[in-house]
Amino acid sequence: VKDFIDKIKNELDDNTLYLDPEKEDLGTYTSDWTKKFNGNTPLVLRPKTTLHVSQMLSICNELGVSIIPQGGNTGVVGGSTPRSEEVVLSLSRLNNLADYDPASATVVCGAGTILKTLHDFATDRGMEFPVDLGARGQCQIGGMLATNAGGNRVLRYGLMREQVRGLEIVMADGTIVSNLNRLKKDNSGIDLKQIFIGSEGILGVITQAVLQLVPLPAARRTAMIALSDRENLPILLSEVRSRFPGLSSLEVLLLQVIEHVIEYVDGPEFPLPKQFPVYVLVEEETESSSAGHDGFVERLGGLFETGLIADAIIAESSLQSERLWHFREATGEAIVAAGFTHKFDVTIPQGEIPSFLDKMENVCSNILGARPLLFGHLGDGNVHVNFVQTPNISDKNFLAPASELAKIVYEETRIRKGSISAEHGIGMLKREFLIYSKTPEEISFMRSLKKSWDPRNILNPGVMIPD
Amino acid sequence: VKDFIDKIKNELDDNTLYLDPEKEDLGTYTSDWTKKFNGNTPLVLRPKTTLHVSQMLSICNELGVSIIPQGGNTGVVGGSTPRSEEVVLSLSRLNNLADYDPASATVVCGAGTILKTLHDFATDRGMEFPVDLGARGQCQIGGMLATNAGGNRVLRYGLMREQVRGLEIVMADGTIVSNLNRLKKDNSGIDLKQIFIGSEGILGVITQAVLQLVPLPAARRTAMIALSDRENLPILLSEVRSRFPGLSSLEVLLLQVIEHVIEYVDGPEFPLPKQFPVYVLVEEETESSSAGHDGFVERLGGLFETGLIADAIIAESSLQSERLWHFREATGEAIVAAGFTHKFDVTIPQGEIPSFLDKMENVCSNILGARPLLFGHLGDGNVHVNFVQTPNISDKNFLAPASELAKIVYEETRIRKGSISAEHGIGMLKREFLIYSKTPEEISFMRSLKKSWDPRNILNPGVMIPD
Repeated sequence: VKDFIDKIKNELDDNTLYLDPEKEDLGTYTSDWTKKFNGNTPLVLRPKTTLHVSQMLSICNELGVSIIPQGGNTGVVGGSTPRSEEVVLSLSRLNNLADYDPASATVVCGAGTILKTLHDFATDRGMEFPVDLGARGQCQIGGMLATNAGGNRVLRYGLMREQVRGLEIVMADGTIVSNLNRLKKDNSGIDLKQIFIGSEGILGVITQAVLQLVPLPAARRTAMIALSDRENLPILLSEVRSRFPGLSSLEVLLLQVIEHVIEYVDGPEFPLPKQFPVYVLVEEETESSSAGHDGFVERLGGLFETGLIADAIIAESSLQSERLWHFREATGEAIVAAGFTHKFDVTIPQGEIPSFLDKMENVCSNILGARPLLFGHLGDGNVHVNFVQTPNISDKNFLAPASELAKIVYEETRIRKGSISAEHGIGMLKREFLIYSKTPEEISFMRSLKKSWDPRNILNPGVMIPD
Repeated sequence: VKDFIDKIKNELDDNTLYLDPEKEDLGTYTSDWTKKFNGNTPLVLRPKTTLHVSQMLSICNELGVSIIPQGGNTGVVGGSTPRSEEVVLSLSRLNNLADYDPASATVVCGAGTILKTLHDFATDRGMEFPVDLGARGQCQIGGMLATNAGGNRVLRYGLMREQVRGLEIVMADGTIVSNLNRLKKDNSGIDLKQIFIGSEGILGVITQAVLQLVPLPAARRTAMIALSDRENLPILLSEVRSRFPGLSSLEVLLLQVIEHVIEYVDGPEFPLPKQFPVYVLVEEETESSSAGHDGFVERLGGLFETGLIADAIIAESSLQSERLWHFREATGEAIVAAGFTHKFDVTIPQGEIPSFLDKMENVCSNILGARPLLFGHLGDGNVHVNFVQTPNISDKNFLAPASELAKIVYEETRIRKGSISAEHGIGMLKREFLIYSKTPEEISFMRSLKKSWDPRNILNPGVMIPD
């Protein structure tokens, strides 16, 4: 590593391209925002161009130095933090954002671009980048691509994968593989970019992407629905899917989540009676900007007639819509405020969600004093399972069974043919559990890719693929 | 190959599992429907199960026998026809179609399922499979996945890739890699299925898939628009994209195409004056089934006010809509009826389409007597270029410069950063031209994948990757 640092300093004769921990404070480069993953690094590399990335990786590969690609560091599975000897490669300065092409509605975007910056860039042009999530002010496009991030509007627009037209990657040996095309339809050979999207930086480093923007919808209409029986969630989903053609979000919140948010986060009053076990937030993008002419109320009325809904409230303005969304958006803050949490991010086939929710409450009840907070994206089956520390729980009882608890949750996921990672990725955290979602054959093919393209295992070692 | 045939007959003791050309007529197994690709085969394998496919590939791999996976054989680039010594692996009998799950709106589908059968299956359940194309009565899901087929509604629903939730593949050595999950969100490790979608059968054989269905739209509204200037096509696209939120098709037809269809195919009268150089078919899926209340007419009126449109006609019924679509759907038949055609299927960034159309007419005018028929999916930049034989052209003049002509078309595509294959794939036909769309680095990574996963080069040899 000493040789490496000397070589980097010699060959890249520009001391703004790295941070030396012996001279500077590394701040947030060595620990993630959840503070669960902390490490050390001998050097933080801060390239300004793709060519810098290529030169840096080439040196790392030659000397066998491990490297951790890092974006906004907002992940929760330990996919972008060093342990001790790994060099951090921060993509933050590759934040070019330009070349908007109105005909194809695409833009060229550096890996270090912050999501919120891209949102604003799109809005300024009367368009929208449809992937949105809570960390929007910090998370970076490169990290979102490497983890195939999802968020609130997957139902209508898909995950990051669906937004990508072109991609530029630097391979472990420094080779630049660049195809920054703007094409939605390109069946000329194997679509290599697909392999790198969601590969968590273990096969190559994403440096730039061409992303698709979409038109701003004329309006978004929001309603909160109450259900008296969680068994009806799958039927509700089918009914909503057929009735609301512009459906963009369908978020489920158990009563306990609503109560927890009210307890821990200041905000508006909850607008429905707190007597129902399940609430569902419905959002639709409609063709007409004049509320009352877009049929949203009539469609909700039709839904009432199915007998599935116990109560509902429709937002009459964007302010009212924000107030409804508060109870979903504030979940993260409310969970952090409560104390330590066991977090799981799984996908369950939608028909199995009621039985899975039952089971998770049951599992939680065996942990003395823990509170189960269960919510998620009903539309795509993504359930966020949180077992939250409450005042009457001791750290010792609660922190101890992390791995045992994970095995129980992932086994319940596996038997329902779900996924142990819906949108957070595998990272270091879930590596040993990958076998719950993937067969030995699949894992062996992942290993074969890794071995072919990063034979010295320098890119994000210890992430995703089990030993 | 003799050893191979003996071994197949011994190990798979069921003579319905193969067709022997010495005893039976092989019909359409050895030539594609365009009749451009003809070959011979020593044996046609007709597995009934994934396990059969695994056993067959295992034997092929052991003996080094090349194999051509074949679906409905409706491709146009020679991706599924044998030359001489290759064994044909027909997936037609893997046509299971079942396990519809209403909550996730997904279905499990064998590779041999015919597209039309899947359409009908979906419609019977009040749903729709959104990929649609002319060969719907013959093309099979496996082939559509192997080529990542597109069609008429890519603009709204994407290509085959976007419809896939789970995939089952048999690798060259017979290993079954199966992940038939129903999940839209699954970020547990590298998404291997993405590598096989669009890989044209050179890396593995797709045997089953889980596909997403979507709700039937309340209504589809169709209009035909006339433009007086093709230069306005990119601006028209931006305007239409912003104004029509449910836009599902945007098809461009030059006047010459309309005239050619009228000349060669019986059909309804063309409902607009034949005096404009460009016509565009717009189709939108709307929320309301009552025409007049869905705002389609108002949106079209708004488009008129931009001054981009010279004339337009709105279909008032599904019959009228079919009559408008006739001029797009009959293009294939009209081209075949005229005689020999040089066909190209390219994607051009939408802003470059006017200059590309100019250039293609210019290229065609250098071929004595040939007629340029240019049309395609404006929304996604997919242009179908056809240079058609007319009565006053001699075969000799016309057939000779095929490869030279391709170089010209693909060079014009390359300089505009387009793709030499939008939706037809590479096959044998475009293999030598892949360098016009992909860099040497990209092609080298495709080769590395092929070498790792099919080391004996038994799967569809001679397809896609240049020597």
